[in-house]
Amino acid sequence: MASVEKASDEATYVNPKKFKSSNEEPKESKKYSVHESLKDLSKFQLKRVLNNNAQKKLLCVEGTFADHDGAAIVLLEKKAFVEEKLDEHLFNESSKLSKEFENDVYGNYNCFPSIEHNSIKTTIIHPAMEKHIAKFENQPIHIVEETPKLYEEITLPHLKKEQFSLQWVYNILEHKAEKERIVFEDPDPKTGFVLIPDLKWDGSLETLYLLAIPMLKGIKSIRDLDQSHLPLLKNIRDAGTKAISKKYSGLPASQLRIYFHYQPSFYHLHIHFTYLKYDAPGIFTEKAHLLSTVINNIELMGEYYSKATLSFVVKESETLFSKYQAHGVLSSQSVEKK
Amino acid sequence: MASVEKASDEATYVNPKKFKSSNEEPKESKKYSVHESLKDLSKFQLKRVLNNNAQKKLLCVEGTFADHDGAAIVLLEKKAFVEEKLDEHLFNESSKLSKEFENDVYGNYNCFPSIEHNSIKTTIIHPAMEKHIAKFENQPIHIVEETPKLYEEITLPHLKKEQFSLQWVYNILEHKAEKERIVFEDPDPKTGFVLIPDLKWDGSLETLYLLAIPMLKGIKSIRDLDQSHLPLLKNIRDAGTKAISKKYSGLPASQLRIYFHYQPSFYHLHIHFTYLKYDAPGIFTEKAHLLSTVINNIELMGEYYSKATLSFVVKESETLFSKYQAHGVLSSQSVEKK
Repeated sequence: MASVEKASDEATYVNPKKFKSSNEEPKESKKYSVHESLKDLSKFQLKRVLNNNAQKKLLCVEGTFADHDGAAIVLLEKKAFVEEKLDEHLFNESSKLSKEFENDVYGNYNCFPSIEHNSIKTTIIHPAMEKHIAKFENQPIHIVEETPKLYEEITLPHLKKEQFSLQWVYNILEHKAEKERIVFEDPDPKTGFVLIPDLKWDGSLETLYLLAIPMLKGIKSIRDLDQSHLPLLKNIRDAGTKAISKKYSGLPASQLRIYFHYQPSFYHLHIHFTYLKYDAPGIFTEKAHLLSTVINNIELMGEYYSKATLSFVVKESETLFSKYQAHGVLSSQSVEKK
Repeated sequence: MASVEKASDEATYVNPKKFKSSNEEPKESKKYSVHESLKDLSKFQLKRVLNNNAQKKLLCVEGTFADHDGAAIVLLEKKAFVEEKLDEHLFNESSKLSKEFENDVYGNYNCFPSIEHNSIKTTIIHPAMEKHIAKFENQPIHIVEETPKLYEEITLPHLKKEQFSLQWVYNILEHKAEKERIVFEDPDPKTGFVLIPDLKWDGSLETLYLLAIPMLKGIKSIRDLDQSHLPLLKNIRDAGTKAISKKYSGLPASQLRIYFHYQPSFYHLHIHFTYLKYDAPGIFTEKAHLLSTVINNIELMGEYYSKATLSFVVKESETLFSKYQAHGVLSSQSVEKK
């Protein structure tokens, strides 16, 4: 499922499968690859920084490798701390401290652990195609306030034209693929759904991530929802949380974040179930809509989602951005960082 | 302003000022402090992990220091990459690579840069009080679905009893404090507001963070909003984005995230303006409500916010959690990690 994700907030994640066996990549590119002999980063010649995420401690740069043709992307991400063997890895004499300042009971230091226990996760893409660079490049983003009129005139024609095939979704619903991964299934054609782990999920409770996919075809996104879908939505909420609690150590519904994306990454309605404490990608207010809010909005006003203004984020590099800009909705003025 | 923030998503930030000159801290504690002589982490005796944030690469542990009385908190956070001098710090022979695997153009490595250019930001609190430990301790959290009835019966009585003084807000509105920090002001008693940098903001465009505070008193949160407040909300939207664009290099409204918190950290209505690309604390869908959505909801239904079910997150350690639990709304069942 993750392989069709295009959410801007996932742009920094590396998923080799996304690009594998693309036609754009010539078979002979392999012979130029640096991967067979690379021992250190001394031969990397920096061209520019594509992205620097201070919160995730992630740096993505473009450059070349001496004696090798083609562009290269180097993606460096500081590692999370591992809770095992902390004494051996961190709390020992190798971890020298240099004091920055102290104030009352607080002391701020710089700590220098030994090299072997403070490495950096590094992904190198070489030779890198234009599409790789575009994917990782930090792009200006904008909020679009999509009125029902703008949806009809701009978004809907765009998504009808550009949307990915939904065959993989139908394969799941029809048991032609991923059948063994299904956590729960209700086959009712109107209110039924399949609950399946998202491909991003590694299986640990801390990062729990499942998707509910309705049997019913033809609901593209929350824009299409009305009071006729309340039984479906409530069934997904109730049966979904019950199935998760049963399968995953009694996890209660109140510790789940249950939400839609708007815009979604594919246009067959689906609902995300994640562990509330997990900062999953795409849970920001300009992207995620709680299932409880969606149900309540429809209960308050059956036609809510065909009348509401829905906001979402577009990158300047996306075609939807240029369509909105051509329509005069978005300012052409953009502030670039540095 | 930040000093009254209690949002769970900020619990991992260290702000020494929050605790400074507290009465709980005896003056003589200084003599037990480790800060005068600490050279490395070899004397730290780990008791338990309080928090481990894999996204921020942040580890917070409780323990003691040999030969020193009192508990200690050690907070380690991997550093963000600095874009200057990358060749000197990273792209050189010291940065040894160890290959994990390769696949087509993708290679995954472990990189071991030199010690001096790969340090960890470390904060040590010693002696640490119970309140320090409680602040950093990872707490189970739950989503409450607050109906209008639950708001009246539980949340409203709670917040009337427990809310912080709003004197500091009135001081800003009455020019008794922070007058020189005001970015924009409209003195109209009904639709006017003050726009002022949030205390968290360091002044750089990448982390832009301002607050709009209405002149009008008595609106506690979005719960209290109705159609009579539309002129106020639209004035804040229009005059606020205009003032920001004028003051900050033409930053367009479409590159701002404009939102309320629910629950807010203080109960005088206020609106957050942040740079859209900045992952500010508290922008998750279970906490942040876009101003554009709030205006649209009231336009669709004047009484929306007195009729809607509003979801928000509570920590199990909060009194509001126990009140909801005693009311039978939240399950007492909670899944602890490990």
